[in-house]
Amino acid sequence: MQIDLNSDLGEGYGAWRMGDDAAMLDIVSSANVACGFHAGDPRGLLETLQQAARRGVAVGAHVSYPDRVGFGRRPMDVAAQELTADVIYQIGALQGLARAAGTRVTYVKPHGALYNTIAEDARQGDAVIAGIVAVDPALVLMGLAGAPILDRARAAGLRVVAEAFADRAYTPSGALVSRRLPGAVLHDPDLVADRMVRLAAEGVIEAADGSTLQLQADSICVHGDSPGAVQMAARTRQALRDRRIAIVPFAP
Amino acid sequence: MQIDLNSDLGEGYGAWRMGDDAAMLDIVSSANVACGFHAGDPRGLLETLQQAARRGVAVGAHVSYPDRVGFGRRPMDVAAQELTADVIYQIGALQGLARAAGTRVTYVKPHGALYNTIAEDARQGDAVIAGIVAVDPALVLMGLAGAPILDRARAAGLRVVAEAFADRAYTPSGALVSRRLPGAVLHDPDLVADRMVRLAAEGVIEAADGSTLQLQADSICVHGDSPGAVQMAARTRQALRDRRIAIVPFAP
Amino acid sequence: MQIDLNSDLGEGYGAWRMGDDAAMLDIVSSANVACGFHAGDPRGLLETLQQAARRGVAVGAHVSYPDRVGFGRRPMDVAAQELTADVIYQIGALQGLARAAGTRVTYVKPHGALYNTIAEDARQGDAVIAGIVAVDPALVLMGLAGAPILDRARAAGLRVVAEAFADRAYTPSGALVSRRLPGAVLHDPDLVADRMVRLAAEGVIEAADGSTLQLQADSICVHGDSPGAVQMAARTRQALRDRRIAIVPFAP
Amino acid sequence: MQIDLNSDLGEGYGAWRMGDDAAMLDIVSSANVACGFHAGDPRGLLETLQQAARRGVAVGAHVSYPDRVGFGRRPMDVAAQELTADVIYQIGALQGLARAAGTRVTYVKPHGALYNTIAEDARQGDAVIAGIVAVDPALVLMGLAGAPILDRARAAGLRVVAEAFADRAYTPSGALVSRRLPGAVLHDPDLVADRMVRLAAEGVIEAADGSTLQLQADSICVHGDSPGAVQMAARTRQALRDRRIAIVPFAP
Repeated sequence: MQIDLNSDLGEGYGAWRMGDDAAMLDIVSSANVACGFHAGDPRGLLETLQQAARRGVAVGAHVSYPDRVGFGRRPMDVAAQELTADVIYQIGALQGLARAAGTRVTYVKPHGALYNTIAEDARQGDAVIAGIVAVDPALVLMGLAGAPILDRARAAGLRVVAEAFADRAYTPSGALVSRRLPGAVLHDPDLVADRMVRLAAEGVIEAADGSTLQLQADSICVHGDSPGAVQMAARTRQALRDRRIAIVPFAP
Repeated sequence: MQIDLNSDLGEGYGAWRMGDDAAMLDIVSSANVACGFHAGDPRGLLETLQQAARRGVAVGAHVSYPDRVGFGRRPMDVAAQELTADVIYQIGALQGLARAAGTRVTYVKPHGALYNTIAEDARQGDAVIAGIVAVDPALVLMGLAGAPILDRARAAGLRVVAEAFADRAYTPSGALVSRRLPGAVLHDPDLVADRMVRLAAEGVIEAADGSTLQLQADSICVHGDSPGAVQMAARTRQALRDRRIAIVPFAP
Repeated sequence: MQIDLNSDLGEGYGAWRMGDDAAMLDIVSSANVACGFHAGDPRGLLETLQQAARRGVAVGAHVSYPDRVGFGRRPMDVAAQELTADVIYQIGALQGLARAAGTRVTYVKPHGALYNTIAEDARQGDAVIAGIVAVDPALVLMGLAGAPILDRARAAGLRVVAEAFADRAYTPSGALVSRRLPGAVLHDPDLVADRMVRLAAEGVIEAADGSTLQLQADSICVHGDSPGAVQMAARTRQALRDRRIAIVPFAP
Repeated sequence: MQIDLNSDLGEGYGAWRMGDDAAMLDIVSSANVACGFHAGDPRGLLETLQQAARRGVAVGAHVSYPDRVGFGRRPMDVAAQELTADVIYQIGALQGLARAAGTRVTYVKPHGALYNTIAEDARQGDAVIAGIVAVDPALVLMGLAGAPILDRARAAGLRVVAEAFADRAYTPSGALVSRRLPGAVLHDPDLVADRMVRLAAEGVIEAADGSTLQLQADSICVHGDSPGAVQMAARTRQALRDRRIAIVPFAP
């Protein structure tokens, strides 16, 4: 048995730091690296990519709406042609930096509001898919497990990877519980670790109402934006390994 | 006999236009395409690259300091590591867009204040060279004919291309007359065309004091940022062809 | 009889020009001046404000979402506290420049997607109102004639000004015909001028279906982003004056 | 006896935090608040200004070159007219936010590379002075104690405040020891506190070579960008108060 662990990295900007990339690169098998639109300056990104290369961690392009002050978290009504070109630009930029760092980009994970929007929205989803296909159709798209975007991407010829979130509650139908609702985010490291072991081993996760849910996930997203988050991610990693579930990149 | 004609293109930004890319792509053999740091948004750049691809015009990455409001024209004291990473990021972004447009980046021409600074400044020049080498050592560096940067790049293993400026006056030693001095910029299309024919045919240009100067140039820069500029560029192109000097990209 | 004519000015950015501010300042009585978020760099804005001051044209803050590459035309889901602070920042910046130019900001007109969103959306509308009140409750809010935002602003204690668009078709209920529909934008200068004279004189405008509509408007928006637009604006001005309708700022 | 303590605040940006503004506002009497060009988003700035207002801490505009990714630390060759307008824009924006927060801007302290450049450079210095005078000639300019900029500002009619740096070594002539040299930055809180008490009480500071130096300073800059820095600032504050040196804003 095996699964991928991914985390959002390279999210500093100039003099500003965010998270502990070095610590997380010892935990995850795949790094979603910012591309400059919501976070990440070239020099900082290059350093994160060099660290990822040294540890053999797979690299994905964490593409975003162009909204640095909003950290890519604010929905934007971007035209399809703009979005496609924005995705191409960001992937290309990260590919250049990855090449310089001795590694390469193997997948694309949209960030924040773009991630959430394209899970369901066909117009923006197709624009993102078109951007990926135009740069390199061998790139894998990482998206929300169970969401329509994965089917659309597969239909367009892309390989896809379904992602689950370690610290988020799920509805009985497999959607994430909205962050605006109580209990949406889980804070108990042991509970989170147990849930992820079960997910990886059995393909099952307990929903917020206590029912169980089939969820096919190839990768688990863990966070590193606080010391507590790093510890939770490390705890999840350890629990998986204790159950002899290998943590390996999904990407080829 | 042959020579390359190049021009700065893709210099709009969002709703703002600059120059007439379509007209210039019918005149030049090489397009220095902005990379987003001084000008160029992804969608507009993609369109310019698609037009260049259709016409078989070679594409160069017109990398800049990160200074959009100053259009990359203001000297900045950027640290070497920052500059190297900025160059990599910009080349990568344009490579991604070029791939999507069915073409590829074959050379790099620094823009504006960066171009002028690295002509002489070894620290920034070496940082730019390091960025190019890190992305792809097969990329050609275009620089000011006669300037030390060309030797430094050659020593680092890069192929270089020496550039002359169609509408600029030269000092007897081969430098450009400063824009702050009268007569620095030439406005007579016939005079400009005659000078460029002589340069291409004989490797000679008349300096501002009337003396003649040996100048080895592989490419001639023409501008397209006004209707008059486009006409001057077209006039130069015609004069070269009338003398059976082929206008072809230098790049492989 | 009198009416105000307004236009969007100061919309260049650095090396990029847009429209002909000098020409429009001879036509309008009120200038909606960009504040840097969708367009306008400080130096260019200062020049526009100096020209407005010399001609006695009233100055409004043309506040926007923070989206320069999208020219403020893309809807964004900005949190209320962010939007309020963004509005305050922009008004303050323009007030500083206006003071330096010997004039002052008397009103606020939201730009582009923000203008359209707050016409109906109470959450964003209230956030904009809160920003204006926090800086200076004597500032006037300019908004779409007939839209709910005007009532909300009045209820918050602001003076408001209702605006009509010279070159736009109206639905029978007084809304603007969507730009996605044919006929949404009018191109005949004489027709536009006649409509605006009737609007100013009788408070009536003909809707797209031929019916007539009562529309109370204190100000008419004209555009200056093309030579044809400037001519149309001048034609409207002349038609109003021919009918002895004075063109004067609404602002105190 | 009395002196002012100042610190750079409001230096977060969107999701990125920097320093502990709340802690520093309990220590200092004057807050140099970022204006958005090197740091500071409107919402975060508004919160910092509200906290400063509640504590009665004086507010200065910490104006910068437009270089967010470089945090305003990189020298830029900005034209005088651009710099003047940039200064006006930033002061105005902070004035608007300060008004909304129930306080006001009483002084201007240029930031980072701009601070260092104008200490000596007359062209850029005069451009900054012109910007301040244009917005409000009652604003005080804070500058490096002993530097020519203070005389130039006084000659232009501005009130000035001379500033010393708590954690920096001085040359025998009163300049700061370059950060590139060993010993440029002091790390011993007790040593720093003792030096500042002596400076406030006697107008004397020990230079790096052991000689003593007359230095007239109205304000002492302390930093808050790390837990250690906050402690050092608190230690300096306590040492001054133990010697009955009041810590009060210089500004009217």
